[in-house]
Amino acid sequence: MLKCQKCGKTYEKFRLVCECGGLLDVVMEFKGSFERLLKKEYLDVRRYLNFLPINEGVLPKLVLPITPTVEMDVENVKVLFKLEYLMPSGSFKDRGTYVTISKLKEEEIKEISIDSSGNAAISFALFGKAEGIKVHVFIPEHTSKGKKRILKLLGAEIHEIKGSRMEVHWKAREFKDAFYISHWYNPYFLEGTKIAAYEIFEQIGEVDYALVPTGSGTLFLGLYKGFKEIKNFEKAKMPKLIAVQAEGYESLCKRSKRKSKLAEGIAIPEPPRKEQMLKALKETEGFCMSVSDSEIDRAFNDLISMGFLIEPTSAVVFAAFKKLLERGEFEKGSKVLLPLTGSGLKVI
Amino acid sequence: MLKCQKCGKTYEKFRLVCECGGLLDVVMEFKGSFERLLKKEYLDVRRYLNFLPINEGVLPKLVLPITPTVEMDVENVKVLFKLEYLMPSGSFKDRGTYVTISKLKEEEIKEISIDSSGNAAISFALFGKAEGIKVHVFIPEHTSKGKKRILKLLGAEIHEIKGSRMEVHWKAREFKDAFYISHWYNPYFLEGTKIAAYEIFEQIGEVDYALVPTGSGTLFLGLYKGFKEIKNFEKAKMPKLIAVQAEGYESLCKRSKRKSKLAEGIAIPEPPRKEQMLKALKETEGFCMSVSDSEIDRAFNDLISMGFLIEPTSAVVFAAFKKLLERGEFEKGSKVLLPLTGSGLKVI
Ligand SMILES: [Zn+2]
Ligand SMILES: [Zn+2]
Repeated sequence: MLKCQKCGKTYEKFRLVCECGGLLDVVMEFKGSFERLLKKEYLDVRRYLNFLPINEGVLPKLVLPITPTVEMDVENVKVLFKLEYLMPSGSFKDRGTYVTISKLKEEEIKEISIDSSGNAAISFALFGKAEGIKVHVFIPEHTSKGKKRILKLLGAEIHEIKGSRMEVHWKAREFKDAFYISHWYNPYFLEGTKIAAYEIFEQIGEVDYALVPTGSGTLFLGLYKGFKEIKNFEKAKMPKLIAVQAEGYESLCKRSKRKSKLAEGIAIPEPPRKEQMLKALKETEGFCMSVSDSEIDRAFNDLISMGFLIEPTSAVVFAAFKKLLERGEFEKGSKVLLPLTGSGLKVI
Repeated sequence: MLKCQKCGKTYEKFRLVCECGGLLDVVMEFKGSFERLLKKEYLDVRRYLNFLPINEGVLPKLVLPITPTVEMDVENVKVLFKLEYLMPSGSFKDRGTYVTISKLKEEEIKEISIDSSGNAAISFALFGKAEGIKVHVFIPEHTSKGKKRILKLLGAEIHEIKGSRMEVHWKAREFKDAFYISHWYNPYFLEGTKIAAYEIFEQIGEVDYALVPTGSGTLFLGLYKGFKEIKNFEKAKMPKLIAVQAEGYESLCKRSKRKSKLAEGIAIPEPPRKEQMLKALKETEGFCMSVSDSEIDRAFNDLISMGFLIEPTSAVVFAAFKKLLERGEFEKGSKVLLPLTGSGLKVI
């Protein structure tokens, strides 16, 4: 069931926003304990099906892995790199797409449109191809050649838009020939990304901090929701959420004048779920911080040296981690989650 | 312990071949049942550590996922696509590299050389980078630009060789400045690839057929070994192994005159472990078959349509599957394993 954040109206059918314009959230009730609800016969995303608002009869054909978590000790802090880039389309977006596609199948929707800086477009193009759903992707003209080639290979209908990321968004909304499923609004997308929190809880247990690359907030809010549900199940403590943004695109903290060129995946100045994110920061006693391109570049090289083949946007969390470590933010022995969101193979 | 296939001599230390020139195998004894030996606290490769000849103190930093298995019904046959391309370097080779790197760490070897058509080189370059091991890669001059770029990014010392794949191999063997770890000979490599069989057994149970892309045989012999060990544990039946080779590079069946250009990953005319492979085919009542570039190309497009972002070499198994299906090889209800070995993101 979908419920409006503003007026409380509920809906059974897939929609992006309430009639009143308010944002929608998925509301679910769980019966049983965390342990019992796990489907232990599966070693992939289906292990967490009982926590998802989807019907087992309409699962997508593609199956998502449980992404590994690599633990490293850095100056008495336990860093937990979660390898979200090992997904079928090369980014964590597949989590949100997985749940969304399942709803589209349930409602027999056969043609969709989406706007994206690249990764969400590739994810929907891939799953759409597998399910026979036609996918219109609206992307910025400057999207990397590698990403465009993949979209073509997957048979997506590509609409290249001149102008800013927000202009791409408005063009996609104006397009009326397909069901628009913006991952910025889409409440089912967050249900998918929340599973990363379930996985980390099963792999590691409680964590103290989660540093999250934050543009539209699809991973940030998904992790928030997942950790909150786990808290309700297990009385586990919530991690402090730290939204990491790129210079010039800060929406949750003070906007810098300089604009990042490296962090294309989170270059979103006006995310619709901004208020919801600010609330999550407050509730977890977290905060927002910003990193510059030179910091991102250094962190990117550090991560490659550690064996993580990621794209530059993914490096923002390690750049932020280094700054926080230097200023003594983490107590000795803290567990700090750093999701690495996108594969470098697509852009190298 | 390593044991020579020819003279029976055993070794404790890492080496590629016996003093007598014979090939080496890892010999291990298992105490306990399959179920009990699983390390269920892990949801990644470490779940199977008790089946590996490695020491928990020297594990590589990078952790491998358990790859998902996608089930599809095709004309009353259950096809099991195992997504081996969702590995950190984009191919199943990471399985063999994982075990090999662990041995290199144990013996404190800091500089290695390897010959490869691309994927094994990238895998060793990645793990080497993460562990501070210097990696010399010998690759054919015609290796794709994308793969070369990744090798450079990972700081591998690249030796481009003009000539055939066999000439690349001989050049690497002549190079004396580093410890040579050819994945063709290296017995530890097969210990890593065998884990794919353990995973499929835990995910699905027994399978009836396994179609395996076969050049040097690192996946073929690994799966053989894994299924054989599981048979001993569980009295499970072994699948019929079907070695799929590319036209012009058949080593286990009749050599075609035409030479494949698409299946670069398995274009290996003289694999050193050929006799061992023929024995495995015989023992499992399997066979070798060959596919052409036009068959590979069609199968590649089929797989992309199903949502599998793979490289052309990976399509050989689906090309073979279609031919076997057409000629009625599979009984109704058969379970047929098709490992998809390499990511398409690197070459697109
Ligand atoms: Zn409303
Ligand atoms: Zn010998």
